[in-house]
Amino acid sequence: MKKAIVCLSGGLDSAVTLATAIKEDYDVLAISFRYPSKHNNHEINAARELCRHYQTTWGICNIEDAFVLYKSALLRDMESPEIPEGHYNDESMAKTVVPARNMIFISILVGIAASREINTIFLGVHSGDHHIYPDCRPAFFNAMQRAIQTALGIDARISKKDKVILLTPFLHKNKTDIVKQGIELSVPFELTRTCYKSQEIACGKCGSCIERLEAFEQNGIQDPIRYITGDNIKAT
Amino acid sequence: MKKAIVCLSGGLDSAVTLATAIKEDYDVLAISFRYPSKHNNHEINAARELCRHYQTTWGICNIEDAFVLYKSALLRDMESPEIPEGHYNDESMAKTVVPARNMIFISILVGIAASREINTIFLGVHSGDHHIYPDCRPAFFNAMQRAIQTALGIDARISKKDKVILLTPFLHKNKTDIVKQGIELSVPFELTRTCYKSQEIACGKCGSCIERLEAFEQNGIQDPIRYITGDNIKAT
Repeated sequence: MKKAIVCLSGGLDSAVTLATAIKEDYDVLAISFRYPSKHNNHEINAARELCRHYQTTWGICNIEDAFVLYKSALLRDMESPEIPEGHYNDESMAKTVVPARNMIFISILVGIAASREINTIFLGVHSGDHHIYPDCRPAFFNAMQRAIQTALGIDARISKKDKVILLTPFLHKNKTDIVKQGIELSVPFELTRTCYKSQEIACGKCGSCIERLEAFEQNGIQDPIRYITGDNIKAT
Repeated sequence: MKKAIVCLSGGLDSAVTLATAIKEDYDVLAISFRYPSKHNNHEINAARELCRHYQTTWGICNIEDAFVLYKSALLRDMESPEIPEGHYNDESMAKTVVPARNMIFISILVGIAASREINTIFLGVHSGDHHIYPDCRPAFFNAMQRAIQTALGIDARISKKDKVILLTPFLHKNKTDIVKQGIELSVPFELTRTCYKSQEIACGKCGSCIERLEAFEQNGIQDPIRYITGDNIKAT
């Protein structure tokens, strides 16, 4: 059976990515990262519930202490501002960039893949991330594919199936497309966590919540999670 | 003053790299990684002493728990064999590869650099590492330079001084050259740690020890650290 790692934050995008990998008959090892984002505990809980739902092998990679010298609004307990509110594409959301975060996550996953003879790593990045997060853009993934093969000493002439390949099924799609695919695959959206803030119930106001609410609205269905704003319709 | 991060394992190569960066008038932030290699505690102690010696700002990045799903002889407490003995270039030393380790280290350092407006990252890799460790080879660093700029969203047209650049002064030199430069810069070799094994005193038999002893021998001086083998001359 073909094997794959799925990078599972516990958010909507990674949940649909997990469902996609399972649908495509991969034997999945889901990996979640414990790191000091303000919403990480809620993400980890969501990832756990998703893996229970899908009966997927799950590993937590703890890099909680790797970010002490970083600055980002996404991280807790450091000289960093609060999570901004507003639309995801607003410049204010740029404060939530954790520089090189995906590069770190991918590097660790590559080592796990190489240790366990896994050739495929699924990531749920999408076009809505491109504007704010450079390490969600096609140029980054193209460059990383090359860096990965050189890191593992894999010859350029080797066949694709023996390389460690990043698969990003939604790289050129948006969150509305992801919700649509999630509906088709019966993804339990109620188990996922998207809000960037630290409280348990989603704020409905940060860029991440607003983008999610829009994606459900555009698919004509209601987001099943609870919001502090009291309803699950996009706040205007 | 120009600023740089030096990746400081506490080994001989990184000690001479630190001395080189200081000699070149960089304001240095030395970073050491706490990770589960069998010799890591001794490396961290060596890094601490080196930073005391040079009065260098020092940070420890703890990724102790990031490697639970890895397999490598270099790591402790897992399904991994003992550190092999013999020459560094022997195939047996390939067991000490931690897949993508340098990719992980560099990715984390890139995020620190971007958080702190530091443009230069020094790494003490050298040609003696090329045979066994793919992520010490020129092809890897070339690919990573590109991946780093895309990860940070730095435009290809931006001037070099505003990019985050990896500097690898010994990439095409060997350990004998590094010892030679260390002698010229009066590096306190007695503070450095090279042996891959877990005991405090260097074994003198692992590939890492043998390569070090050869490098001192070829420079016509005695290695000032202690060896279990009783003398500091290359075991034959």
